[in-house]
Amino acid sequence: MRILGIDPGYATVGFGILDYQGMRFQTVEYGAILTEAHTDFSGRLAQIYEDMCFLLEKYRPQVLSVEKLYFNTNKTTGIMVAEARGVILLACAQKNIPVFEYTPLQVKSAVVGYGKAEKMQVMDMTRRILRLAEIPKPDDAADALALAICHGHCANPDY
Amino acid sequence: MRILGIDPGYATVGFGILDYQGMRFQTVEYGAILTEAHTDFSGRLAQIYEDMCFLLEKYRPQVLSVEKLYFNTNKTTGIMVAEARGVILLACAQKNIPVFEYTPLQVKSAVVGYGKAEKMQVMDMTRRILRLAEIPKPDDAADALALAICHGHCANPDY
Repeated sequence: MRILGIDPGYATVGFGILDYQGMRFQTVEYGAILTEAHTDFSGRLAQIYEDMCFLLEKYRPQVLSVEKLYFNTNKTTGIMVAEARGVILLACAQKNIPVFEYTPLQVKSAVVGYGKAEKMQVMDMTRRILRLAEIPKPDDAADALALAICHGHCANPDY
Repeated sequence: MRILGIDPGYATVGFGILDYQGMRFQTVEYGAILTEAHTDFSGRLAQIYEDMCFLLEKYRPQVLSVEKLYFNTNKTTGIMVAEARGVILLACAQKNIPVFEYTPLQVKSAVVGYGKAEKMQVMDMTRRILRLAEIPKPDDAADALALAICHGHCANPDY
């Protein structure tokens, strides 16, 4: 199963693509879609959409694993992240890629085995699970890979 | 100037298209994009995107006037509305249609002349300004027309 993990945002969209087979992960690609701050907001959404379509065409993931959004402190930023997330979901819907949503607690539990794990612990366990020399950069890409791992574990009844 | 007003939502997207020339509005079309509750959420976003593209192709508006979002009571619904709004902005960005955002207070001020006007007053003034026999249905379409009127007035320095 090829899983695309996405850490949604409008300035930076982290992505991580993993193959999961026989309870083992293989890292396919990871990185971030970056949009330019001087572009108007709807133009940034268009760029995210184009880059998402490019990723889906190139790597052909079978499922999307994306962070579930909650709003708390910064509501304006939250709205813009949700708008970007809508565009990400659209790109996947157009390719009939099913969407799975996970909370940060679910991701931490699936990756570290502890729902209140620190961010650094999650990143380091992500690195270990994927047998990488370094923690993936930027942080958004590491978060996206953790989301992909989370889906692999959650979707596997044997885990 | 042809203005597309949009009242964003994920179950119902109200739209209203007006021509504004010589300080007079001409109603071109109004109505609502409806998505089916039994469809999964990203499928609803795809439907909104397709219907938006259809409207933009058919009526070729020059600007989008859309409600600015705020979150207050229902955060989950708010996130879904913002996700749908992202898809609406995307469709416009892909056709280089500039986006103007207005708060409910700005819409009320522009349509009724009073920022604390009741919803019914706004709808009735919308009907009068557009010289319609009845208040447009559904409410989302009336709200979208009010947004289009708001942009006409706000964009006109002589008003």
